Amino acid sequence: MTDIAAMAKAVRAGDRRALARAITLVESGKPAHRDAALALLDALGADRQALRIGLSGTPGVGKSTFIETFGLMLTQRDLKVAVLAVDPSSARSGGSILGDKTRMERLSRDPRAFIRPSPSQTHLGGVARRTREAIRLCEAAGFDLVLVETVGVGQSETVVARMTDLFVLLLAPAGGDELQGVKRGIMEIADLILVNKADGDLRAPAMRTRSDYAGALRLMRKREGDAEGFPKAICVSALETEGLEAAWDEMRTLTAWRRRSGHFDATRAAQARHWFREELRAEMMALLTTDADLRERLTGLEDDVSAGRMTPAAAARAALAPLGGG
Amino acid sequence: MTDIAAMAKAVRAGDRRALARAITLVESGKPAHRDAALALLDALGADRQALRIGLSGTPGVGKSTFIETFGLMLTQRDLKVAVLAVDPSSARSGGSILGDKTRMERLSRDPRAFIRPSPSQTHLGGVARRTREAIRLCEAAGFDLVLVETVGVGQSETVVARMTDLFVLLLAPAGGDELQGVKRGIMEIADLILVNKADGDLRAPAMRTRSDYAGALRLMRKREGDAEGFPKAICVSALETEGLEAAWDEMRTLTAWRRRSGHFDATRAAQARHWFREELRAEMMALLTTDADLRERLTGLEDDVSAGRMTPAAAARAALAPLGGG
Repeated sequence: MTDIAAMAKAVRAGDRRALARAITLVESGKPAHRDAALALLDALGADRQALRIGLSGTPGVGKSTFIETFGLMLTQRDLKVAVLAVDPSSARSGGSILGDKTRMERLSRDPRAFIRPSPSQTHLGGVARRTREAIRLCEAAGFDLVLVETVGVGQSETVVARMTDLFVLLLAPAGGDELQGVKRGIMEIADLILVNKADGDLRAPAMRTRSDYAGALRLMRKREGDAEGFPKAICVSALETEGLEAAWDEMRTLTAWRRRSGHFDATRAAQARHWFREELRAEMMALLTTDADLRERLTGLEDDVSAGRMTPAAAARAALAPLGGG
Repeated sequence: MTDIAAMAKAVRAGDRRALARAITLVESGKPAHRDAALALLDALGADRQALRIGLSGTPGVGKSTFIETFGLMLTQRDLKVAVLAVDPSSARSGGSILGDKTRMERLSRDPRAFIRPSPSQTHLGGVARRTREAIRLCEAAGFDLVLVETVGVGQSETVVARMTDLFVLLLAPAGGDELQGVKRGIMEIADLILVNKADGDLRAPAMRTRSDYAGALRLMRKREGDAEGFPKAICVSALETEGLEAAWDEMRTLTAWRRRSGHFDATRAAQARHWFREELRAEMMALLTTDADLRERLTGLEDDVSAGRMTPAAAARAALAPLGGG
């Protein structure tokens, strides 16, 4: 049995090894570990808060270079930065393809930074829970910023946007006709679009791309939590460390506005309620499939439904009758 | 109280008014109606089977004209055709915008046809259940074909594809660069692509569009239930009644192959299991929110989660403790 109180104390003291072990604990699928993880999260409390930033970008846009350069800029300002990766695609292959730590070598050696590679998880639901809880652990460990990185496969951006305070989309310069390539759903959740690689030969294309996206953003419906002028598109060069200060200023401006207007807290509360409902659904399914009697009952009903002997609705009612339904 | 046995008898006798009333019953949100609807579906049995065809096409592709002309061609062959509409967007405005019956005037007067406009429903989940159960009712009423039409907003195609045997995508002629406009997800579920309006000035563009899509389909991964040469793209003109026989032949060829190979029944069984799981989820949520004690408990926990006093996971466990979880 893990000593929860000792682990909580070490995490709160900013012990990076304790933090790493705590994240491993919340990632575990074992029931005993799950109990310990919930006890740990409870013991850690919720008095410390980091700015949670979601960052999305498809491979090739220079995401690692950006995170490394941006992260180092922040740690030089004495901010503590944690980087978590959400990558359901690499998850399928049983771990991170890119090797998060090696691709951000300088940042990973920085004592004020903490980088956690993608875990091997099989479904986005599990990734979502693990990431949310890892964010809480990083906050309890005293980090000022938690950067949650996603490669933009499937629904992962939406999931990450639902657990972060700001959502940043990193793009590479492209021809105007490629604008359609970005899924509309991602444009709709982005607070800040950074067109990276605005250096050398790509400076002019980057500026044109930025202007295309700025135009597209203007055409979109204003959202509730948008400060004047947001969402915004700007150019950066992670390679030449250009525009990163400006990007950080924009993030702080928007965050400050949201804090003043109450949107910051309201969004966090709404996110918490969303995840509560998701957890409830997951726990209910678990309840139905772990209880042996219920499971047997379900299998029989599923056979009836498969064979067309019962409608899905009638079978669902019958399944829940022992819980007081139907 | 509705006389279920009498209604079941009338539906099975092909009484169109009884069928319309039965569909209204399955659409109802009232608990007593829900009980009656489940009893009715149970009484009707599952011995009759129609070919279920999903049809998607954005406004402007000539969907109404196609359904009318295609439907009339089938009824002239003595086939009984039912048309159901799934339209979450019109649902939001409280009913069908287009007025399904008036836009298919000749077909709606045909005694061998039955057209049911979109109901006013607020969410796709409700639309899905209503449509699945309406399909069963049409089958029990002796229809040979059930055409389930969707306008292709959001996730509705996927939902429709999960309750039909064949999925047909209707498209209008377009420039080659517009090919990207069709969501990849829809291409992936289509069994047959019909490029409509292959008449007059649009004949040449339609042929080019067909060829573009045929090329795109060839690049896609082969699916399990695909007969040789499928998915396929062909040209039709609903206006000039051209290519509709060929389209029907393709549908019959693919269906016959799937029946022989066992894919037809296997897919229906898998679909039934999918909807069983969905119903189970919905019923569990209903169970939690209708029980007064549980609801009060949930509200309190939601407040704790909102305020950050509890993690979503811990709150979900606490919520389910009375059901035997946690």
